[in-house]
Amino acid sequence: MSTTGQVKVMGNGEAPAGLEGVVVAHTQIGDVRGLEGFYHSRQYDAVELNRRRTLEDVWHLFFHGHLPDPAERARFQGEISGHRVLPDGLVPFLRTLATTDPFDPLTALRTAISFTAERSGFRSWLDISPDQLYDNAMQLSAQTPVLLAALYRLHYGHEPVAPDPELSAAANYLYMLSGQRPDQQHAWALERYLISTIDHGFNSSTFTARVIASTGADLGAAVTGAIGALSGPLHGGAPSRVLDMLDDIGRPELAEAWVRSAVGRGDKIMGFGHRVYKGKDPRSALLREVATTVGGSTAEFAVAVEDVIVRVLAEAKPGRALNANVEFYAGVVMDACGIPREAFTPTFASSRVIGWCTHVLEQVAGNRLIRPSARYDGQAPPVPVPAGD
Amino acid sequence: MSTTGQVKVMGNGEAPAGLEGVVVAHTQIGDVRGLEGFYHSRQYDAVELNRRRTLEDVWHLFFHGHLPDPAERARFQGEISGHRVLPDGLVPFLRTLATTDPFDPLTALRTAISFTAERSGFRSWLDISPDQLYDNAMQLSAQTPVLLAALYRLHYGHEPVAPDPELSAAANYLYMLSGQRPDQQHAWALERYLISTIDHGFNSSTFTARVIASTGADLGAAVTGAIGALSGPLHGGAPSRVLDMLDDIGRPELAEAWVRSAVGRGDKIMGFGHRVYKGKDPRSALLREVATTVGGSTAEFAVAVEDVIVRVLAEAKPGRALNANVEFYAGVVMDACGIPREAFTPTFASSRVIGWCTHVLEQVAGNRLIRPSARYDGQAPPVPVPAGD
Repeated sequence: MSTTGQVKVMGNGEAPAGLEGVVVAHTQIGDVRGLEGFYHSRQYDAVELNRRRTLEDVWHLFFHGHLPDPAERARFQGEISGHRVLPDGLVPFLRTLATTDPFDPLTALRTAISFTAERSGFRSWLDISPDQLYDNAMQLSAQTPVLLAALYRLHYGHEPVAPDPELSAAANYLYMLSGQRPDQQHAWALERYLISTIDHGFNSSTFTARVIASTGADLGAAVTGAIGALSGPLHGGAPSRVLDMLDDIGRPELAEAWVRSAVGRGDKIMGFGHRVYKGKDPRSALLREVATTVGGSTAEFAVAVEDVIVRVLAEAKPGRALNANVEFYAGVVMDACGIPREAFTPTFASSRVIGWCTHVLEQVAGNRLIRPSARYDGQAPPVPVPAGD
Repeated sequence: MSTTGQVKVMGNGEAPAGLEGVVVAHTQIGDVRGLEGFYHSRQYDAVELNRRRTLEDVWHLFFHGHLPDPAERARFQGEISGHRVLPDGLVPFLRTLATTDPFDPLTALRTAISFTAERSGFRSWLDISPDQLYDNAMQLSAQTPVLLAALYRLHYGHEPVAPDPELSAAANYLYMLSGQRPDQQHAWALERYLISTIDHGFNSSTFTARVIASTGADLGAAVTGAIGALSGPLHGGAPSRVLDMLDDIGRPELAEAWVRSAVGRGDKIMGFGHRVYKGKDPRSALLREVATTVGGSTAEFAVAVEDVIVRVLAEAKPGRALNANVEFYAGVVMDACGIPREAFTPTFASSRVIGWCTHVLEQVAGNRLIRPSARYDGQAPPVPVPAGD
């Protein structure tokens, strides 16, 4: 069964633009069942997994294919701590990126990862052992949040904060951003968000990572490219826009008029609709619970606005079943945890990197160069080349 | 007709691993007809175009869809010269990249492009005008050779050489690398190589650029990702290995024994075979002519070795029709022009960037987010999540 539940017929070799529903690989990492509103990581319901396990346990599941036992957990934690460091001598380089005008954090992260991978001697996976590639993957997954937090602090004129080995991955991220130990509820809430974004089928950035890795390129090339894809507003770029929309609406009683007016103008409503989920997005329901736990009045307001949007869209676009997607509550959760809006999409990248690395590990285990074709529909060649005067 | 001449049947929605022969887009940029040993740029036979036109004229053809008249040529040359500069204040950053150990020039270029794009304020193409995106494309295409030459010179302890507005793109590249004005024959030879590599169908790096651009990401993200894909040995990484092989063979009379021994061991022969060309690679024939013009005894030796390899492979793998690909003579040409081996693949990137940018311009003109699917074949979900002890 294809991941969308729809099978495309392409007897003439032509795929639909956007490759919707086209199966480009076999995977054992997970799947998204758009029509059922269900997604899973390995054999587990991703929402149940998220409610019951830590980010580190889920990360182990992705990298090793199974949840850790206590000994594996301790060993894995040691590996993470070993890599979760700001590399020696890197701060001047990060300062250059962080003080460049304009500063775009995801672009700065892209440059930082590209450089870090080279500086660490990452090489084509054809030229290293699977263990070395796994180690590269642990390093990038552990260092991405460190690099990102350092870029933010440097941008705002503060020195980077070294990670605390006593803290979890999620708590460390908040600590490295703010320099303050986060309260447990915020660390819990951010951890739910981070787990929910580790992986989600063959989205564009994940596919980018696999295409790049299929050429034999090093893991840094694959992750750098994936960050670039994630920076596109049609893929990863919107959680902050939902909060901007809530600000713009202002008060619950103004929501209906605002939404009707936006829909009337044909504006896209931020945080609604999804290429694959045609019904509910299971991540949205999970994050709504988290948001209402930590998000206070902003969360209540968001819930009220969601209800209005669902109602107005159902009326305006019957049959489309447009529902809140993962981004709708993501911004409320991150905002409640004290993460600034401009860091929302980079924070998404900070855990999605685990998914990208897992996909690269799977790609190289059964690699075939990904090289499609196109149909030329311009003027028929060969037309004689005119003299160049 | 598909670009390989073969049509894939995928009635169940499943594409072959590697997407061979799967048409993922319509294009008016050009096409590769693998079975005919023919490729074209727009409506022109690419080999004839290469013989009759300058790199700048072909670049104009790619970006504007037609060859320039004299007035267009002068205007285009002015645009190129305006962008063909080393950006103010960038040298310290490039020096950091160039003096990092290990130094991999293509990886350093990846980081340099990623940073340059941010520093120049590149933004999502959804948020800028088509003219601004075109200007971004002119900038990256003109600056890539400048950045690359500067990285090399800094790596070897020399200061960068500013481009000379009187010189052509190809001559400038040699000038910026060596600090010496190249002789005309070398500039001519390198120009033929650079034109031959601008574009070649939906290869992996071009596809990467289009996938990234399809998310709305900025042009810098697309080109950074494409450089990453090009760095994979299965895609862009081999011209220097052909020269290494020639060195290893040593003398013409040793070629037959060397090749028979390599084929007997099952080693891959560098510079032979191609995913799309099942007969002759037209770029190989063109570059052989160029190599024999400028390559002296190395070229004669390469021709002799090519003959031996073709003969031995035809005997050992009947029916496979393995022929020299673009890489076989590329190294001989670049070597004759004084380009060091470690700069071969980066030099490839220095003109392929024109092709990547053209594909991004085409992608965004009729964009659809590229987001395929995968078939999950792991343990069936949902399995209950065990307690985390």
